[in-house]
Amino acid sequence: MATPVKVYGPPLSTAVSRVLACLLEKDVDFQLISINLAKGEHKKADFIKIQPFGQVPAFQDENISLFESRAICRYICEKYKEKGNKGLYGTNPLAKASIDQWLEAEGQSFNPPSSALVFQLAFAPRMKLKQDEGLIKQSEAKLAKVLDVYEKRLGETQFLAGDEFSLADLSHLPNTQYLVNATDRGELFTSRENVGRWWGEISSRESWKKVVEMQKSGKEEQRQKLLMMESDAKDEELGGYNSNNMKKARLNSTLAALLDDPVLADVPKKPTLSDVDTLISLELGSAMRISVLKLDGTSFGTCPTPTRFKVFSLTF
Amino acid sequence: MATPVKVYGPPLSTAVSRVLACLLEKDVDFQLISINLAKGEHKKADFIKIQPFGQVPAFQDENISLFESRAICRYICEKYKEKGNKGLYGTNPLAKASIDQWLEAEGQSFNPPSSALVFQLAFAPRMKLKQDEGLIKQSEAKLAKVLDVYEKRLGETQFLAGDEFSLADLSHLPNTQYLVNATDRGELFTSRENVGRWWGEISSRESWKKVVEMQKSGKEEQRQKLLMMESDAKDEELGGYNSNNMKKARLNSTLAALLDDPVLADVPKKPTLSDVDTLISLELGSAMRISVLKLDGTSFGTCPTPTRFKVFSLTF
Repeated sequence: MATPVKVYGPPLSTAVSRVLACLLEKDVDFQLISINLAKGEHKKADFIKIQPFGQVPAFQDENISLFESRAICRYICEKYKEKGNKGLYGTNPLAKASIDQWLEAEGQSFNPPSSALVFQLAFAPRMKLKQDEGLIKQSEAKLAKVLDVYEKRLGETQFLAGDEFSLADLSHLPNTQYLVNATDRGELFTSRENVGRWWGEISSRESWKKVVEMQKSGKEEQRQKLLMMESDAKDEELGGYNSNNMKKARLNSTLAALLDDPVLADVPKKPTLSDVDTLISLELGSAMRISVLKLDGTSFGTCPTPTRFKVFSLTF
Repeated sequence: MATPVKVYGPPLSTAVSRVLACLLEKDVDFQLISINLAKGEHKKADFIKIQPFGQVPAFQDENISLFESRAICRYICEKYKEKGNKGLYGTNPLAKASIDQWLEAEGQSFNPPSSALVFQLAFAPRMKLKQDEGLIKQSEAKLAKVLDVYEKRLGETQFLAGDEFSLADLSHLPNTQYLVNATDRGELFTSRENVGRWWGEISSRESWKKVVEMQKSGKEEQRQKLLMMESDAKDEELGGYNSNNMKKARLNSTLAALLDDPVLADVPKKPTLSDVDTLISLELGSAMRISVLKLDGTSFGTCPTPTRFKVFSLTF
C-alpha cells in the first residue's frame, strides 16, 4: 500500500478543506496533520521549510512538498490521474483549459468578495465585532456581479467548465458552504435558478459531505481544547474589557475559535505593539482579517471599535 | 502557416502583458486586437461572449476562447509544448507542480500588494490624486514580507520554481516592471541580493524587452489619441475643478491615460449617480481603482478628496 500523502492544517480552513475535497474526489489516501496555530507551529523552522509563507495548508507526497491550495489540487489531479474521479481536471487539453480558466476566475474574482463576506457575516458576529456595513454591501454587490456571470454560464453548461463536475466547481465549495449555511446571504446563490441548482449538485457530492463532517469534528475538538484552556486561564488584564469571568470566557472562546483559522497565519514573528496596530488596520482595511498574535508566550487579540482598534494582551 | 492566436486588450495592462510575454517566450504568432475601453467595447455583446466578466485580456485560438491571464498562459504552454521555450511550464510533473505553486504564490500573495503599490505610486501622482499613505506603508510591508520569502528561495535556486526560468517568474514581470521603473520603490527588489539578481535576469529576457517596446508604442498612440480628443473637447462643467484650459487638459490627459487600463473594465453598464459613488468608494477602498464610466455619451470621472469623492461629468 502506498504511503498516504500528508496535509498539514485544520479542516475548518477554507484552503485546507479545498485540498481535502480534492483528495476525497480522487480517492487518494491522506493523513491529516494538526497544526496548532495558537502555539505558532506554522511559524516554526520545520514548518517554514515546507511552507515558506508560514500559512496552511502544506502538503507532502513522497519526494515533493507543496503549498497553495489550488496548486496542490492541480498536482493531486496530475499525479493520481488514474484514481477516483478521472475527469476532475479534464481528460483533454480543451477541457483542462476551461477548468483552469474557471479555477482562476474563482481565485481572482469569486474568492475576494466571498471570503470578505464569510468573515463579516459568519465570523464577526460570533466574535462580537462590529460589522463593516459598507464593506458588506460592496462585497455583496461584487459577488452578485460574479454570480450573474455564473448564472448565465450555468444556463449553458451543467457545471462551470462544462458538463462535468471539475476542480473549478470544487474550488468554490469552501466559501460557499459558509455563505449558504452560516450567514443569511445564502439567497445570493439559491435565488439564482442555475446557480442554486449548481450549488445543490456540487454540495451534495460525497467528497464534500465528508469534508463537512470533518469540519464538525474539528469544531468539537476545538470546543474541548477551549474548555481545557479556560480552566487553565490565569488572571489577566483585558484592556477595555471588563475582566469578569463571563466576558473573559466569551473572549477566550472567540479567540480560540479563531486560532485554527488560516486568516491568522499571516502574522509577523516578533511583532511590536505598533506592528500589531498597523497590521490590524491593514488586515481589516484590505482583507478584513482579525489577527491573534503570539508574542513570547503572550497573545495579542484585536478588538476593533468603529473608529479605532484596541489592542489587549491575553494569556492562555 | 498556422492562423495566429488573437489577444484582445492593450499591452499597458499588466494582465495583457503577461500573456504577450508568454506568447513571445513560446514563439507563437499572435495578433493583438485593440479594445477601446473608452468606447465600452469590453462591455459589448460580442466581447462578453468571449470574456463574460467584460475585462481584458481575452484570447482566441482555433476552437477555443479563454480569459484570465494565468489560465491563458497555461493553455499556451500546453498547446504549444514543442515551440519556443520548451521548459517554460516544466518538462516533468515535479517541475510543473513547483511552477504551479509559485505561480499561485504570485497570484495570491505577490499580486495584491504589488498592484496596490503600482496604482498608488505610479498612477496616482500622474493623475494628481492624493496618495493613501497608510495603504502604501501597509502594501510595502506586505510586499517586503513576500520578497523576504523570495530572497531566501532565490538563494537556494536560480529562479522561483527551480534552476530554469519559468511561467512563475514570467508572471511577476508586469507589476515589477512598473515598481522598478515607474516608482521610487525599486529598492524593494534591488536591495535584496538574490531578488535583485533574479529581477536583472528575468527582465532582460528578449521576450520581455519586446513587451516593454510594445507598451512604449502603446503610450505614444494614447498620446496622439489624447491630442485629438483634446482638440475636439467641448465646453463643459468640471465639478470642483476650475474649467480653465490647462486644468481641463490635465484632467483629460489623466482620464485618457486611464481609459486603456484594465482597472476600468469592471463597471456597470447603466450606472446611476449613486451606483457611481458606491462603485468609487468600493474600488478605492478595496482595490484602489479609479473608474471612468461612460453613460449615454457622457463620461463620469472620479476625483477623490481625503474625505469624499466628487463625481463630475466630462464630455470628450
